[in-house]
Amino acid sequence: MADEVKLHGVWNSPFSCRVIWVLKLKGIPYDYIEEDLQNKSPELLKYNPVHKKIPVLVHGVRPICESMIIVEYIEETWPQKYPLLPTDPYERAMARFWVKYFEEKTIAIWMVFRTTGEEQEKFKKETLEMLRTIEEHTSTLGKKKFFGGDKIGIVDIAFGWISQWFEVVEDVVGVKLFEAHAFPCLHAWTQNFKQVPLIKENLPDRDKMLVLFKRARENLFAS
Amino acid sequence: MADEVKLHGVWNSPFSCRVIWVLKLKGIPYDYIEEDLQNKSPELLKYNPVHKKIPVLVHGVRPICESMIIVEYIEETWPQKYPLLPTDPYERAMARFWVKYFEEKTIAIWMVFRTTGEEQEKFKKETLEMLRTIEEHTSTLGKKKFFGGDKIGIVDIAFGWISQWFEVVEDVVGVKLFEAHAFPCLHAWTQNFKQVPLIKENLPDRDKMLVLFKRARENLFAS
Repeated sequence: MADEVKLHGVWNSPFSCRVIWVLKLKGIPYDYIEEDLQNKSPELLKYNPVHKKIPVLVHGVRPICESMIIVEYIEETWPQKYPLLPTDPYERAMARFWVKYFEEKTIAIWMVFRTTGEEQEKFKKETLEMLRTIEEHTSTLGKKKFFGGDKIGIVDIAFGWISQWFEVVEDVVGVKLFEAHAFPCLHAWTQNFKQVPLIKENLPDRDKMLVLFKRARENLFAS
Repeated sequence: MADEVKLHGVWNSPFSCRVIWVLKLKGIPYDYIEEDLQNKSPELLKYNPVHKKIPVLVHGVRPICESMIIVEYIEETWPQKYPLLPTDPYERAMARFWVKYFEEKTIAIWMVFRTTGEEQEKFKKETLEMLRTIEEHTSTLGKKKFFGGDKIGIVDIAFGWISQWFEVVEDVVGVKLFEAHAFPCLHAWTQNFKQVPLIKENLPDRDKMLVLFKRARENLFAS
Protein backbone atom coordinates (compact mmCIF):
# COMPACT_ATOMS: atom_id res chain seq x y z
CA MET A 1 0.00 0.00 0.00
CA ALA A 2 2.76 2.43 1.02
CA ASP A 3 4.59 1.70 -2.21
CA GLU A 4 1.60 1.42 -4.50
CA VAL A 5 1.97 3.49 -7.66
CA LYS A 6 -0.99 4.96 -9.53
CA LEU A 7 -0.99 7.12 -12.62
CA HIS A 8 -3.82 9.43 -13.60
CA GLY A 9 -3.51 10.15 -17.30
CA VAL A 10 -5.14 10.49 -20.70
CA TRP A 11 -4.30 7.93 -23.41
CA ASN A 12 -3.41 10.47 -26.13
CA SER A 13 -1.39 12.86 -23.95
CA PRO A 14 2.36 13.03 -24.61
CA PHE A 15 2.77 14.11 -21.00
CA SER A 16 1.09 10.95 -19.70
CA CYS A 17 3.16 8.88 -22.11
CA ARG A 18 6.42 10.30 -20.77
CA VAL A 19 5.55 8.91 -17.35
CA ILE A 20 4.33 5.57 -18.76
CA TRP A 21 7.58 5.14 -20.75
CA VAL A 22 9.70 5.75 -17.66
CA LEU A 23 7.63 3.41 -15.47
CA LYS A 24 7.92 0.72 -18.15
CA LEU A 25 11.65 1.23 -18.76
CA LYS A 26 12.31 1.01 -15.02
CA GLY A 27 9.96 -1.96 -14.62
CA ILE A 28 7.83 -0.33 -11.93
CA PRO A 29 4.34 -1.88 -11.61
CA TYR A 30 1.49 0.66 -11.48
CA ASP A 31 -2.24 1.08 -11.82
CA TYR A 32 -3.44 3.36 -14.56
CA ILE A 33 -6.53 5.57 -14.22
CA GLU A 34 -7.81 7.08 -17.48
CA GLU A 35 -9.20 10.56 -16.84
CA ASP A 36 -11.98 12.29 -18.75
CA LEU A 37 -10.83 15.90 -19.08
CA GLN A 38 -14.42 17.05 -19.62
CA ASN A 39 -15.34 15.52 -16.28
CA LYS A 40 -12.24 15.32 -14.12
CA SER A 41 -12.27 12.87 -11.22
CA PRO A 42 -12.43 14.23 -7.64
CA GLU A 43 -9.07 12.50 -7.08
CA LEU A 44 -7.40 14.47 -9.89
CA LEU A 45 -8.77 17.77 -8.54
CA LYS A 46 -7.60 16.83 -5.04
CA TYR A 47 -4.16 15.68 -6.15
CA ASN A 48 -3.42 18.61 -8.47
CA PRO A 49 -5.36 21.57 -7.04
CA VAL A 50 -3.04 24.16 -8.63
CA HIS A 51 -3.18 23.08 -12.27
CA LYS A 52 -5.97 20.43 -12.24
CA LYS A 53 -4.07 18.66 -15.02
CA ILE A 54 -2.85 15.19 -15.85
CA PRO A 55 -0.51 13.41 -15.42
CA VAL A 56 -0.51 12.87 -11.68
CA LEU A 57 1.53 10.06 -10.16
CA VAL A 58 0.39 8.89 -6.74
CA HIS A 59 3.05 7.01 -4.78
CA GLY A 60 1.44 5.56 -1.66
CA VAL A 61 -0.62 8.57 -0.60
CA ARG A 62 1.65 11.25 -2.05
CA PRO A 63 0.74 12.90 -5.38
CA ILE A 64 3.34 14.32 -7.77
CA CYS A 65 2.37 16.58 -10.68
CA GLU A 66 3.99 17.84 -13.92
CA SER A 67 5.37 15.18 -16.26
CA MET A 68 9.08 16.02 -16.15
CA ILE A 69 9.00 16.55 -12.38
CA ILE A 70 7.38 13.12 -12.07
CA VAL A 71 10.18 11.70 -14.27
CA GLU A 72 12.86 13.18 -11.97
CA TYR A 73 10.95 11.88 -8.93
CA ILE A 74 10.85 8.37 -10.38
CA GLU A 75 14.56 8.62 -11.19
CA GLU A 76 15.43 9.68 -7.63
CA THR A 77 13.15 7.09 -6.02
CA TRP A 78 14.28 4.16 -8.19
CA PRO A 79 17.76 5.29 -9.29
CA GLN A 80 19.29 1.86 -9.89
CA LYS A 81 16.92 0.54 -12.51
CA TYR A 82 17.52 2.06 -15.95
CA PRO A 83 19.15 5.37 -14.92
CA LEU A 84 17.85 8.32 -16.93
CA LEU A 85 20.22 11.08 -15.87
CA PRO A 86 24.02 11.12 -16.12
CA THR A 87 25.95 11.26 -12.84
CA ASP A 88 28.22 14.21 -13.72
CA PRO A 89 26.65 17.51 -12.53
CA TYR A 90 27.62 19.29 -15.75
CA GLU A 91 26.01 16.65 -17.95
CA ARG A 92 22.95 16.70 -15.72
CA ALA A 93 22.74 20.48 -16.20
CA MET A 94 23.02 20.06 -19.98
CA ALA A 95 20.23 17.46 -19.94
CA ARG A 96 18.04 19.76 -17.84
CA PHE A 97 18.79 22.63 -20.25
CA TRP A 98 17.35 20.68 -23.18
CA VAL A 99 14.38 19.44 -21.21
CA LYS A 100 13.56 23.04 -20.28
CA TYR A 101 14.15 24.23 -23.84
CA PHE A 102 11.65 21.71 -25.16
CA GLU A 103 9.12 22.42 -22.40
CA GLU A 104 9.16 26.11 -23.31
CA LYS A 105 9.22 25.90 -27.08
CA THR A 106 6.79 23.11 -28.02
CA ILE A 107 3.85 25.38 -27.47
CA ALA A 108 4.58 26.58 -31.04
CA ILE A 109 3.45 23.35 -32.72
CA TRP A 110 0.29 23.25 -30.59
CA MET A 111 -0.41 26.82 -31.65
CA VAL A 112 -0.03 25.75 -35.30
CA PHE A 113 -2.81 23.29 -34.46
CA ARG A 114 -5.00 25.93 -32.83
CA THR A 115 -4.70 28.73 -35.41
CA THR A 116 -5.04 29.52 -39.12
CA GLY A 117 -3.82 32.10 -41.63
CA GLU A 118 -1.29 34.74 -40.68
CA GLU A 119 -1.29 33.83 -37.01
CA GLN A 120 -0.50 30.24 -37.94
CA GLU A 121 2.37 31.36 -40.19
CA LYS A 122 4.04 32.97 -37.18
CA PHE A 123 3.82 29.73 -35.19
CA LYS A 124 5.05 27.70 -38.17
CA LYS A 125 8.16 29.87 -38.20
CA GLU A 126 8.64 29.39 -34.46
CA THR A 127 8.23 25.63 -34.87
CA LEU A 128 10.83 25.52 -37.65
CA GLU A 129 13.22 27.56 -35.53
CA MET A 130 12.78 25.09 -32.68
CA LEU A 131 13.34 22.13 -35.01
CA ARG A 132 16.52 23.74 -36.37
CA THR A 133 17.88 24.27 -32.86
CA ILE A 134 17.07 20.70 -31.86
CA GLU A 135 18.50 19.37 -35.15
CA GLU A 136 21.76 21.14 -34.40
CA HIS A 137 21.85 19.63 -30.93
CA THR A 138 20.96 16.20 -32.31
CA SER A 139 23.85 16.43 -34.80
CA THR A 140 26.23 16.36 -31.81
CA LEU A 141 25.10 12.81 -31.00
CA GLY A 142 27.55 11.37 -33.54
CA LYS A 143 27.32 7.60 -33.29
CA LYS A 144 25.15 7.64 -30.18
CA LYS A 145 21.59 6.52 -30.81
CA PHE A 146 20.05 8.52 -27.99
CA PHE A 147 20.68 11.62 -25.92
CA GLY A 148 21.15 9.16 -23.07
CA GLY A 149 23.90 7.38 -25.07
CA ASP A 150 23.14 3.76 -26.01
CA LYS A 151 20.00 3.86 -23.94
CA ILE A 152 17.12 6.29 -23.59
CA GLY A 153 17.76 9.15 -21.15
CA ILE A 154 15.75 12.02 -19.73
CA VAL A 155 16.17 14.23 -22.84
CA ASP A 156 14.86 11.41 -25.06
CA ILE A 157 11.85 11.12 -22.74
CA ALA A 158 11.22 14.87 -22.96
CA PHE A 159 11.59 14.99 -26.77
CA GLY A 160 9.75 11.66 -27.16
CA TRP A 161 6.51 12.99 -28.47
CA ILE A 162 8.16 14.40 -31.59
CA SER A 163 8.09 10.75 -32.68
CA GLN A 164 4.31 10.63 -33.06
CA TRP A 165 2.28 13.66 -32.01
CA PHE A 166 4.18 16.01 -34.30
CA GLU A 167 3.26 14.03 -37.42
CA VAL A 168 -0.37 13.68 -36.35
CA VAL A 169 -0.67 17.45 -35.87
CA GLU A 170 0.93 18.00 -39.29
CA ASP A 171 -1.48 15.54 -40.96
CA VAL A 172 -4.55 17.09 -39.36
CA VAL A 173 -3.50 20.68 -40.10
CA GLY A 174 -2.22 19.83 -43.58
CA VAL A 175 1.31 21.19 -43.27
CA LYS A 176 4.72 19.60 -43.41
CA LEU A 177 7.33 21.15 -41.16
CA PHE A 178 9.38 18.22 -39.91
CA GLU A 179 10.79 17.16 -43.28
CA ALA A 180 13.25 14.25 -43.09
CA HIS A 181 15.70 15.88 -45.55
CA ALA A 182 15.73 19.17 -43.63
CA PHE A 183 16.21 17.57 -40.21
CA PRO A 184 18.10 14.34 -40.93
CA CYS A 185 19.64 13.85 -37.47
CA LEU A 186 16.40 14.47 -35.60
CA HIS A 187 14.58 12.23 -38.04
CA ALA A 188 17.08 9.40 -37.45
CA TRP A 189 16.68 9.90 -33.70
CA THR A 190 12.89 9.63 -34.07
CA GLN A 191 13.26 6.29 -35.84
CA ASN A 192 15.65 4.99 -33.18
CA PHE A 193 13.32 6.10 -30.42
CA LYS A 194 10.22 4.49 -31.91
CA GLN A 195 12.05 1.22 -32.48
CA VAL A 196 12.71 0.62 -28.79
CA PRO A 197 10.14 -2.11 -28.01
CA LEU A 198 8.91 -0.60 -24.73
CA ILE A 199 8.33 2.74 -26.49
CA LYS A 200 6.70 1.23 -29.57
CA GLU A 201 4.32 -0.80 -27.39
CA ASN A 202 3.41 2.29 -25.41
CA LEU A 203 2.66 4.81 -28.12
CA PRO A 204 -1.03 5.66 -28.53
CA ASP A 205 -2.77 4.28 -31.59
CA ARG A 206 -2.01 6.62 -34.49
CA ASP A 207 -5.33 6.19 -36.29
CA LYS A 208 -7.35 6.83 -33.15
CA MET A 209 -5.23 9.91 -32.53
CA LEU A 210 -5.88 11.19 -36.06
CA VAL A 211 -9.66 10.87 -35.61
CA LEU A 212 -9.56 12.62 -32.24
CA PHE A 213 -7.25 15.47 -33.28
CA LYS A 214 -9.21 16.03 -36.50
CA ARG A 215 -12.43 16.37 -34.55
CA ALA A 216 -10.74 18.68 -32.01
CA ARG A 217 -9.52 20.99 -34.77
CA GLU A 218 -12.93 21.03 -36.45
CA ASN A 219 -14.52 21.97 -33.14
CA LEU A 220 -12.04 24.80 -32.71
CA PHE A 221 -13.16 26.42 -35.94
CA ALA A 222 -16.84 25.46 -35.93
CA SER A 223 -18.83 28.65 -36.36
CA MET B 1 41.92 27.39 -13.38
CA ALA B 2 39.92 24.18 -13.71
CA ASP B 3 37.76 25.22 -10.79
CA GLU B 4 37.55 28.91 -11.54
CA VAL B 5 34.00 30.23 -11.43
CA LYS B 6 32.82 33.16 -13.53
CA LEU B 7 29.37 34.67 -13.74
CA HIS B 8 28.11 36.71 -16.68
CA GLY B 9 25.16 38.78 -15.47
CA VAL B 10 23.36 42.09 -15.38
CA TRP B 11 23.14 43.97 -12.07
CA ASN B 12 19.37 44.51 -12.11
CA SER B 13 18.37 41.04 -13.30
CA PRO B 14 16.55 38.82 -10.79
CA PHE B 15 17.92 35.84 -12.71
CA SER B 16 21.53 36.96 -12.17
CA CYS B 17 20.74 37.65 -8.52
CA ARG B 18 19.47 34.12 -7.94
CA VAL B 19 22.89 32.81 -8.93
CA ILE B 20 24.75 35.45 -6.90
CA TRP B 21 22.68 34.63 -3.79
CA VAL B 22 23.48 30.93 -4.10
CA LEU B 23 27.21 31.52 -4.71
CA LYS B 24 27.31 33.80 -1.66
CA LEU B 25 25.28 31.46 0.58
CA LYS B 26 27.56 28.57 -0.34
CA GLY B 27 30.70 30.71 0.00
CA ILE B 28 31.97 29.98 -3.50
CA PRO B 29 34.45 32.59 -4.79
CA TYR B 30 33.73 33.85 -8.32
CA ASP B 31 34.51 36.57 -10.80
CA TYR B 32 31.62 38.66 -12.00
CA ILE B 33 31.35 40.02 -15.54
CA GLU B 34 28.68 42.70 -16.06
CA GLU B 35 27.13 42.32 -19.53
CA ASP B 36 25.69 45.10 -21.66
CA LEU B 37 22.56 43.59 -23.22
CA GLN B 38 22.63 46.16 -26.03
CA ASN B 39 26.11 44.98 -26.92
CA LYS B 40 26.57 41.41 -25.69
CA SER B 41 30.11 40.14 -25.23
CA PRO B 42 31.45 37.51 -27.67
CA GLU B 43 31.85 35.22 -24.62
CA LEU B 44 28.14 35.43 -23.77
CA LEU B 45 27.17 34.63 -27.38
CA LYS B 46 29.61 31.72 -27.43
CA TYR B 47 28.54 30.35 -24.04
CA ASN B 48 24.78 30.63 -24.60
CA PRO B 49 24.27 30.27 -28.37
CA VAL B 50 20.67 29.05 -28.00
CA HIS B 51 19.19 31.86 -25.91
CA LYS B 52 22.02 34.47 -25.92
CA LYS B 53 20.86 35.46 -22.43
CA ILE B 54 22.33 36.06 -19.01
CA PRO B 55 23.04 34.60 -16.52
CA VAL B 56 25.76 32.23 -17.65
CA LEU B 57 27.99 30.51 -15.10
CA VAL B 58 31.34 29.32 -16.41
CA HIS B 59 32.97 26.65 -14.26
CA GLY B 60 36.50 26.05 -15.55
CA VAL B 61 35.76 26.01 -19.27
CA ARG B 62 32.21 24.70 -19.06
CA PRO B 63 29.28 27.14 -19.41
CA ILE B 64 25.90 26.55 -17.75
CA CYS B 65 22.81 28.59 -18.72
CA GLU B 66 19.35 29.31 -17.24
CA SER B 67 19.27 30.59 -13.67
CA MET B 68 17.47 27.71 -11.94
CA ILE B 69 19.51 25.11 -13.85
CA ILE B 70 22.64 26.92 -12.70
CA VAL B 71 21.29 26.81 -9.13
CA GLU B 72 20.79 23.02 -9.34
CA TYR B 73 24.27 22.65 -10.89
CA ILE B 74 25.84 24.59 -8.02
CA GLU B 75 23.87 22.47 -5.54
CA GLU B 76 25.08 19.22 -7.12
CA THR B 77 28.68 20.41 -7.47
CA TRP B 78 28.97 21.83 -3.93
CA PRO B 79 26.29 19.83 -2.08
CA GLN B 80 27.78 20.05 1.43
CA LYS B 81 27.89 23.80 1.86
CA TYR B 82 24.45 25.29 2.59
CA PRO B 83 22.22 22.60 1.01
CA LEU B 84 19.35 24.10 -0.98
CA LEU B 85 17.28 21.01 -1.74
CA PRO B 86 15.79 18.53 0.72
CA THR B 87 17.09 14.94 0.54
CA ASP B 88 13.71 13.18 0.33
CA PRO B 89 12.69 12.63 -3.33
CA TYR B 90 9.09 13.64 -2.63
CA GLU B 91 10.09 16.91 -0.99
CA ARG B 92 12.51 17.55 -3.85
CA ALA B 93 9.65 17.04 -6.32
CA MET B 94 7.46 19.48 -4.35
CA ALA B 95 10.26 22.07 -4.37
CA ARG B 96 10.72 21.61 -8.13
CA PHE B 97 6.96 21.94 -8.62
CA TRP B 98 6.96 25.41 -7.05
CA VAL B 99 10.10 26.50 -8.87
CA LYS B 100 8.44 25.51 -12.16
CA TYR B 101 5.18 27.19 -11.18
CA PHE B 102 6.96 30.45 -10.54
CA GLU B 103 9.07 30.18 -13.69
CA GLU B 104 5.92 29.81 -15.77
CA LYS B 105 3.66 32.35 -14.09
CA THR B 106 5.86 35.38 -13.38
CA ILE B 107 5.63 36.48 -16.98
CA ALA B 108 2.30 38.06 -15.90
CA ILE B 109 3.89 40.80 -13.78
CA TRP B 110 6.38 41.59 -16.55
CA MET B 111 3.47 41.89 -18.95
CA VAL B 112 1.79 44.33 -16.55
CA PHE B 113 4.99 46.34 -16.99
CA ARG B 114 4.92 46.08 -20.77
CA THR B 115 1.25 46.89 -21.43
CA THR B 116 -1.52 49.41 -20.70
CA GLY B 117 -5.33 49.55 -20.66
CA GLU B 118 -7.44 46.48 -21.21
CA GLU B 119 -4.49 44.27 -22.06
CA GLN B 120 -2.85 45.26 -18.78
CA GLU B 121 -6.02 44.47 -16.84
CA LYS B 122 -5.82 40.88 -18.07
CA PHE B 123 -2.24 40.56 -16.83
CA LYS B 124 -3.11 42.21 -13.51
CA LYS B 125 -5.73 39.50 -12.98
CA GLU B 126 -3.21 36.79 -13.85
CA THR B 127 -0.69 38.32 -11.44
CA LEU B 128 -3.26 38.39 -8.62
CA GLU B 129 -4.17 34.78 -9.32
CA MET B 130 -0.50 33.82 -9.08
CA LEU B 131 -0.11 35.77 -5.82
CA ARG B 132 -3.18 34.03 -4.37
CA THR B 133 -1.80 30.60 -5.24
CA ILE B 134 1.60 31.42 -3.77
CA GLU B 135 -0.03 32.96 -0.67
CA GLU B 136 -1.93 29.73 -0.11
CA HIS B 137 1.28 27.74 -0.43
CA THR B 138 3.12 30.17 1.86
CA SER B 139 0.39 29.74 4.50
CA THR B 140 1.51 26.10 4.87
CA LEU B 141 4.88 27.28 6.21
CA GLY B 142 3.45 27.64 9.72
CA LYS B 143 6.32 28.60 11.99
CA LYS B 144 8.98 28.02 9.37
CA LYS B 145 10.61 31.22 8.13
CA PHE B 146 11.50 29.89 4.70
CA PHE B 147 10.42 27.27 2.18
CA GLY B 148 13.77 25.66 3.00
CA GLY B 149 12.81 25.55 6.72
CA ASP B 150 15.01 27.64 9.04
CA LYS B 151 17.32 28.42 6.14
CA ILE B 152 16.82 29.56 2.59
CA GLY B 153 16.14 26.76 0.11
CA ILE B 154 15.73 26.46 -3.65
CA VAL B 155 12.09 27.68 -3.61
CA ASP B 156 13.11 30.80 -1.68
CA ILE B 157 15.79 31.44 -4.29
CA ALA B 158 13.27 31.05 -7.11
CA PHE B 159 10.66 33.30 -5.44
CA GLY B 160 13.37 35.70 -4.21
CA TRP B 161 12.73 38.51 -6.61
CA ILE B 162 9.21 39.07 -5.27
CA SER B 163 11.12 40.79 -2.45
CA GLN B 164 12.26 43.70 -4.60
CA TRP B 165 11.49 43.64 -8.33
CA PHE B 166 7.76 43.25 -7.79
CA GLU B 167 7.50 46.48 -5.81
CA VAL B 168 9.67 48.38 -8.27
CA VAL B 169 7.44 47.30 -11.17
CA GLU B 170 4.36 48.33 -9.17
CA ASP B 171 5.85 51.75 -8.38
CA VAL B 172 6.83 52.43 -11.99
CA VAL B 173 3.51 51.26 -13.43
CA GLY B 174 1.47 52.93 -10.66
CA VAL B 175 -0.50 49.89 -9.50
CA LYS B 176 -0.64 48.03 -6.21
CA LEU B 177 -1.22 44.30 -6.51
CA PHE B 178 0.92 42.79 -3.75
CA GLU B 179 -0.96 44.35 -0.81
CA ALA B 180 0.35 43.27 2.60
CA HIS B 181 -3.16 42.77 4.04
CA ALA B 182 -4.28 40.62 1.09
CA PHE B 183 -1.17 38.41 1.11
CA PRO B 184 -0.01 38.40 4.74
CA CYS B 185 1.98 35.14 4.65
CA LEU B 186 3.82 35.99 1.45
CA HIS B 187 4.47 39.47 2.78
CA ALA B 188 5.97 38.05 6.00
CA TRP B 189 8.12 35.70 3.92
CA THR B 190 9.36 38.66 1.85
CA GLN B 191 10.46 40.46 5.04
CA ASN B 192 12.22 37.34 6.35
CA PHE B 193 13.97 36.84 3.04
CA LYS B 194 15.23 40.41 2.76
CA GLN B 195 16.52 40.35 6.32
CA VAL B 196 19.04 37.59 5.65
CA PRO B 197 22.32 39.57 5.56
CA LEU B 198 23.73 37.84 2.45
CA ILE B 199 20.51 38.54 0.56
CA LYS B 200 20.20 42.12 1.79
CA GLU B 201 23.78 42.87 0.78
CA ASN B 202 23.19 41.38 -2.65
CA LEU B 203 19.99 43.05 -3.73
CA PRO B 204 20.40 45.68 -6.45
CA ASP B 205 20.03 49.32 -5.40
CA ARG B 206 16.31 50.09 -5.33
CA ASP B 207 16.64 53.74 -6.42
CA LYS B 208 18.87 52.88 -9.36
CA MET B 209 16.36 50.19 -10.34
CA LEU B 210 13.48 52.68 -10.20
CA VAL B 211 15.28 55.09 -12.54
CA LEU B 212 16.13 52.33 -14.98
CA PHE B 213 12.71 50.68 -15.02
CA LYS B 214 10.97 54.03 -15.35
CA ARG B 215 13.07 54.89 -18.38
CA ALA B 216 12.47 51.43 -19.86
CA ARG B 217 8.69 51.81 -19.56
CA GLU B 218 8.79 55.30 -21.05
CA ASN B 219 10.77 53.96 -24.00
CA LEU B 220 8.21 51.21 -24.51
CA PHE B 221 5.44 53.74 -25.01
CA ALA B 222 7.39 56.54 -26.70
CA SER B 223 5.57 57.41 -29.91
